[in-house]
Amino acid sequence: MDRRRAAPTTAVLAERPGAAGGPAVTLAAYRRVRAATMSLVEGLTPEDMVAQSMDDCSPTKWHLAHTTWFFETFVLRAAARGYAPFHPAFEVLFNSYYQAVGPQYPRPRRGLLTRPPLAEVLAYRAAVDAAIERMFAGEVAPAIAARVELGLHHEQQHQELILMDLKHLFAHNPLGPALRAGAAPPSGRPAPPLAWHAGPDGLVELGHDGAGFAFDNEGPRHRAYLRPYALASRLVTAGEFAEFVADGGYRRADLWLSDGWATVQRLGWAAPLYWDMSGGTWTICTLGGPRPLDPHAPVVHVSHYEADAFARWAGARLPTEAEWEAVAAGRPVVGNFVESGLLHPTAAAPDSGPQQLFGDAWEWTASAYLPYPGFRAAEGALGEYNGKFMSGQMVLRGGACVTPQDHARATYRNFFPPQARWPFAGLRLARDA
Amino acid sequence: MDRRRAAPTTAVLAERPGAAGGPAVTLAAYRRVRAATMSLVEGLTPEDMVAQSMDDCSPTKWHLAHTTWFFETFVLRAAARGYAPFHPAFEVLFNSYYQAVGPQYPRPRRGLLTRPPLAEVLAYRAAVDAAIERMFAGEVAPAIAARVELGLHHEQQHQELILMDLKHLFAHNPLGPALRAGAAPPSGRPAPPLAWHAGPDGLVELGHDGAGFAFDNEGPRHRAYLRPYALASRLVTAGEFAEFVADGGYRRADLWLSDGWATVQRLGWAAPLYWDMSGGTWTICTLGGPRPLDPHAPVVHVSHYEADAFARWAGARLPTEAEWEAVAAGRPVVGNFVESGLLHPTAAAPDSGPQQLFGDAWEWTASAYLPYPGFRAAEGALGEYNGKFMSGQMVLRGGACVTPQDHARATYRNFFPPQARWPFAGLRLARDA
Amino acid sequence: MDRRRAAPTTAVLAERPGAAGGPAVTLAAYRRVRAATMSLVEGLTPEDMVAQSMDDCSPTKWHLAHTTWFFETFVLRAAARGYAPFHPAFEVLFNSYYQAVGPQYPRPRRGLLTRPPLAEVLAYRAAVDAAIERMFAGEVAPAIAARVELGLHHEQQHQELILMDLKHLFAHNPLGPALRAGAAPPSGRPAPPLAWHAGPDGLVELGHDGAGFAFDNEGPRHRAYLRPYALASRLVTAGEFAEFVADGGYRRADLWLSDGWATVQRLGWAAPLYWDMSGGTWTICTLGGPRPLDPHAPVVHVSHYEADAFARWAGARLPTEAEWEAVAAGRPVVGNFVESGLLHPTAAAPDSGPQQLFGDAWEWTASAYLPYPGFRAAEGALGEYNGKFMSGQMVLRGGACVTPQDHARATYRNFFPPQARWPFAGLRLARDA
Amino acid sequence: MDRRRAAPTTAVLAERPGAAGGPAVTLAAYRRVRAATMSLVEGLTPEDMVAQSMDDCSPTKWHLAHTTWFFETFVLRAAARGYAPFHPAFEVLFNSYYQAVGPQYPRPRRGLLTRPPLAEVLAYRAAVDAAIERMFAGEVAPAIAARVELGLHHEQQHQELILMDLKHLFAHNPLGPALRAGAAPPSGRPAPPLAWHAGPDGLVELGHDGAGFAFDNEGPRHRAYLRPYALASRLVTAGEFAEFVADGGYRRADLWLSDGWATVQRLGWAAPLYWDMSGGTWTICTLGGPRPLDPHAPVVHVSHYEADAFARWAGARLPTEAEWEAVAAGRPVVGNFVESGLLHPTAAAPDSGPQQLFGDAWEWTASAYLPYPGFRAAEGALGEYNGKFMSGQMVLRGGACVTPQDHARATYRNFFPPQARWPFAGLRLARDA
Repeated sequence: MDRRRAAPTTAVLAERPGAAGGPAVTLAAYRRVRAATMSLVEGLTPEDMVAQSMDDCSPTKWHLAHTTWFFETFVLRAAARGYAPFHPAFEVLFNSYYQAVGPQYPRPRRGLLTRPPLAEVLAYRAAVDAAIERMFAGEVAPAIAARVELGLHHEQQHQELILMDLKHLFAHNPLGPALRAGAAPPSGRPAPPLAWHAGPDGLVELGHDGAGFAFDNEGPRHRAYLRPYALASRLVTAGEFAEFVADGGYRRADLWLSDGWATVQRLGWAAPLYWDMSGGTWTICTLGGPRPLDPHAPVVHVSHYEADAFARWAGARLPTEAEWEAVAAGRPVVGNFVESGLLHPTAAAPDSGPQQLFGDAWEWTASAYLPYPGFRAAEGALGEYNGKFMSGQMVLRGGACVTPQDHARATYRNFFPPQARWPFAGLRLARDA
Repeated sequence: MDRRRAAPTTAVLAERPGAAGGPAVTLAAYRRVRAATMSLVEGLTPEDMVAQSMDDCSPTKWHLAHTTWFFETFVLRAAARGYAPFHPAFEVLFNSYYQAVGPQYPRPRRGLLTRPPLAEVLAYRAAVDAAIERMFAGEVAPAIAARVELGLHHEQQHQELILMDLKHLFAHNPLGPALRAGAAPPSGRPAPPLAWHAGPDGLVELGHDGAGFAFDNEGPRHRAYLRPYALASRLVTAGEFAEFVADGGYRRADLWLSDGWATVQRLGWAAPLYWDMSGGTWTICTLGGPRPLDPHAPVVHVSHYEADAFARWAGARLPTEAEWEAVAAGRPVVGNFVESGLLHPTAAAPDSGPQQLFGDAWEWTASAYLPYPGFRAAEGALGEYNGKFMSGQMVLRGGACVTPQDHARATYRNFFPPQARWPFAGLRLARDA
Repeated sequence: MDRRRAAPTTAVLAERPGAAGGPAVTLAAYRRVRAATMSLVEGLTPEDMVAQSMDDCSPTKWHLAHTTWFFETFVLRAAARGYAPFHPAFEVLFNSYYQAVGPQYPRPRRGLLTRPPLAEVLAYRAAVDAAIERMFAGEVAPAIAARVELGLHHEQQHQELILMDLKHLFAHNPLGPALRAGAAPPSGRPAPPLAWHAGPDGLVELGHDGAGFAFDNEGPRHRAYLRPYALASRLVTAGEFAEFVADGGYRRADLWLSDGWATVQRLGWAAPLYWDMSGGTWTICTLGGPRPLDPHAPVVHVSHYEADAFARWAGARLPTEAEWEAVAAGRPVVGNFVESGLLHPTAAAPDSGPQQLFGDAWEWTASAYLPYPGFRAAEGALGEYNGKFMSGQMVLRGGACVTPQDHARATYRNFFPPQARWPFAGLRLARDA
Repeated sequence: MDRRRAAPTTAVLAERPGAAGGPAVTLAAYRRVRAATMSLVEGLTPEDMVAQSMDDCSPTKWHLAHTTWFFETFVLRAAARGYAPFHPAFEVLFNSYYQAVGPQYPRPRRGLLTRPPLAEVLAYRAAVDAAIERMFAGEVAPAIAARVELGLHHEQQHQELILMDLKHLFAHNPLGPALRAGAAPPSGRPAPPLAWHAGPDGLVELGHDGAGFAFDNEGPRHRAYLRPYALASRLVTAGEFAEFVADGGYRRADLWLSDGWATVQRLGWAAPLYWDMSGGTWTICTLGGPRPLDPHAPVVHVSHYEADAFARWAGARLPTEAEWEAVAAGRPVVGNFVESGLLHPTAAAPDSGPQQLFGDAWEWTASAYLPYPGFRAAEGALGEYNGKFMSGQMVLRGGACVTPQDHARATYRNFFPPQARWPFAGLRLARDA
């Protein structure tokens, strides 16, 4: 992925062969994930796909090329003796951050890459896809299959990034463009009252247990000791957050972490990203274009600082990632994911939950993104996937309305710097029991 | 124009009617200039036309729209009662800097305007062109005709900006794109030895005398007193500038203005913009793609600071704009302009000159861009065209290989901040006689 | 303290009365700590005490005033009905970061406060000391006594800051000033070989148990589960760190966290702060003036990033704060503290340790500075002491050669941002067992 | 001087011997100027003299040392064979900007030089003074005498800088310190109505004619051609400027140069520097401490941008330096200079003028600071005095209430960047006649 999340060690992957000892990943899965990426960008013009609205974002075209580069670099070059790269310059142009592979074109300038044109990037995708198809026609070594599997999860991460980055780009445009005209409809139902659910406490086990795919940062599985606590039954709603705003939440230093307060002052924050007050009502930017704020839908596009300040205002706190995982473990991974087509969070069901653990909005936790006990990054370039980002970031859990459903799981550790607001991130309250 | 150069006062323009008292500008001229703009961008993709490589540059698409906005705003809205603007949002999106017209979309974000798509901008051009055609079918008041004429000179300025800005964009791309494959061929002849030409001294007259079009900053015509001086017979060549580089010119503080030296240190300048040393030879970026440095062609893409330091190194100085104009006045406006298709300066003819006064490269002068005695900016928005930029910039004279030939004249005052390097700017030496 | 570390909740403090139910803190302790501050600054000129070398540092004079302000604000105003503040402007001038008290003079401008002159600040100290003396002549309520005790620990923190900030100031001066001519002598003995010590694992208890003073961030006491691990017997030496430098440690991206590598590039780091290479040998800046590097003394003035990169280079890692505390708990708090007068770390004893747990150098841990489970900041201004800084910082443990000995303890949590280099911070290696 | 104004060419100086062919400068003059510097700083503490409030300002102590360094470097080292410098490190520490002399301690860090202490700087002054006295006891070569003379004018420039820089420092202090309690009293009389005075037009002569001392940038004397114009009889008053403020002058883009408007927006300017509105009245910071605004005193501490905008608002313009000098030439150099002890401008006399040409406030002109025709900087380090600053600055004329009277003259060219507000600079209106 670009800027975050890590590769399984080769060893771990090699130990997870498919049923008959063959690869755990199928060509059908490859085709499905690659096609899902292209279906996301339907309706975009080449112009839409070249622009970059901030250093943290990348152009859609770059995402299309980089995910392809990932398969070319880590699968085809490793698997196919004598594989001839599609274009010699692409090794640099579409390397995100892998120092062990070589130099990278400067990230803040990705929006200047009007060449190669989109058509050539699509040809690149087709050429690499064809080579993968040819590879699958023969025997695929387990280590190579594991890298294909990693590449597919990597591509799913970029599917979400494409949507995040496009939203950020379109939000700068006074014409109010939409990716999908029908996206982000009103929830149409009220959010249920908030209830509290005690989670497992004492000694618990955390982290990936080895069944199915996981990124390296989800392991090793380990023990942690939890004091009694309770989690809220649903996500915080936009309406609840609007009360915080109306109550002067952005003007009261006592509610904020020191870094958060400094950020509020420096950047002039007065509401979540994409909120715009006009005539006494809030309008928000969505992937369906501008929409009136739906107070029952979960709030998104808040930073960790804002999530933390809201929780303090509400007399609660954020959950730790261990608390969250202890509650989520074993529950079905269902919810409002990218497959719903809503591309926006929606009101919780009339149910006392806990619900919305998966989908709708990533949930900021109180946990810094650090290695689990015993964690070791893989050797080589793929070791850079996740491990080197374990500094200065906070963990988010659960997945969002722009995440593919089969990409989410209870052990998944997403992470962003505390000031980031362009992810689809909201929060769930927690408290000591 | 965008960021520089000024509108004639209405009075001045109104006094220059055509032969039969009709408009000084013809529909044929309008068609010709507008078509010339479109011919420049042939071969570019929509992606090429949306990107913005720095705050001072604009996307090609924006230039196409802004020049159209100029006619819509200052001609059609003024002339045609009940004219319905093409799109209500364009008034803000494509206003460059006219505070009296209203707010502007932030300049550094022009590269985010993936919408309107290029096709809509082309439709905008067509619609405004059609309205102008309709207007010319009837009587055109002299004041309106004068504004059309101004709009055409404005559009010519943007033709040059399109080429400057594209070159800057393409220079960031490791693929080395070219706008025209055949542009910037080697000069094919040696530059002649440099000779010195004394110019008129004592009391001279400067500035536009009222015959033909001029921007307001070229007047009023006035007197200045000049001491004896001489100008070099041709522009400084790239080869001469390479000697300055090889002689440690960028490492000797004594050659530089204090601000220039600070800039060299801060930005790490070691050669002109677009020069790249590899294996002991210089390669430069041109609109024809990467090229070996032609030592006989004039140097371009140097800042005022570099031009000044070179002149000091050479035991000379830059000419003042008065000296330059006193020499250039009355000479034919011929040279290497955009019509040559070279899009790069070329070696001077085997002639003792003075030559290359027009075309090839803008010539940095020793003069700050300030109002001429008696200058008054026009009332209203068009008064912002030139006057408000008379601070912190230096005057350049003569025109470049990317300037339309009929846009150049002896009284023309171009201007840029002293650190600007993306214009096609070089220098001619001068000395006291 | 200034920018870090937290106040005990009133409740906790009120529960820790002295032996006979009276205050836990004595006037003698007050006199001793206040006098210790003044003894540190002996020999400094008023000029030395007004300058500020970066935003994170404060002038000595400001430290002298701020610690006094702390007693005035939180003790005298709270305790003494009708207490008349020494100067009305001081409430703002010497408030560090307590939003609940009111506005603060901008931190980066503290070096501009040539007025009040030093003499007036000393008079301020004397006046507040006198008022405290008068207060102790009568009955002191336990809550007030607790605040005096907090104020003394606060003042001790500023004693260390005075030394850190002076060193940073003097390091900018080519004259090489010394605070104490005899400080930082050579260690005079070789560091012993490094050995490994397994620490307690499984379920351990962490945090302050209520006996004696502690800051609020040291509690509540709680359980954590540790996997088997070992700590190095002593601190990493300057000589070992010099090997890392010589081995290209600052030029190998694979050794660094991503943020660390970006910082190395941006700031041009090539060695620890205050190291200067000349003629093939390292000279360092110390509070005794410039000194040749003693390879046997512990390295100091490295950031968390550098500590982490060194550990990776050495095939080890940093300890977590839980691991460190599990090893340190119960051991005597002895070592090279400020009372030694060395003001620099010194070589470990010829002993297999674990030694140097206390004193010499703060030890960067792998733990982010976050609240312990169940932590709640106190109400009101004193709640700002520590809690609001629990974001973006890393925990350091153990104390340094500029820390007062009775200020250190096994549960003490110091914290700084990962890029900070002006603290006396080094590292101890750890590894999984 | 520090950052501006230039050295006479050796030739010019050598041609101006004293009456009997001896040096034009006397020991008495040396003593008088050096003593005047020390009298300015009476009452300051060492702390006051070490602080630096912005990069453009220097600490008083640094000024005291640098002016001494100037005599040591350019007189004693040149004149006295075997002169032993006072301290080897001072060559770097107190070199302002002379690249030809060698490296300089970074300007923005001058406030960190708590060492050498003030006492040592005073000893440095005494030692250099003693060496100069010894030198004058013998024969002084004319070239050396010329350098002494230059050094005295240099020191007078720093006398003014000391006052400017102290005012800037004290303005940051909420305690409102004063340099002189009695300074800046109310004018006590109304400013007379503004009248207009036509100046000489046609061909005029400008620049220094060789009689008496001048900086090199005041020559060569040359001709210029002026159109008819008139200058205002007095300076613009603070009351007149307050009307501009009240009329929304800082909120109307049409009144400003483009760079000026951008600066107003970026820095949030809403009034001249040191103006503070409270309870409907303006208070200003002066060297006598805070004072109510005297509407009849000339406005000071405006930038060129503000002066230009005010003039446009008033339907007038700024004078060129040629116009100003043509009017001022031959008039007596009398006015409110530093010797008045007011240290603030005062209301014009009840007189139709032109008055206040000298003293009270430097007058921004419409002229960029550029070389006069035929100007050549001296060879060597002293050539850096003025010439290298001829870029990006504007000329001011006349002298201010903090300028020594015998430092002012009609040909004197002061210069500052257009955004500078800490000089004592105001304006006089001009208009075309």
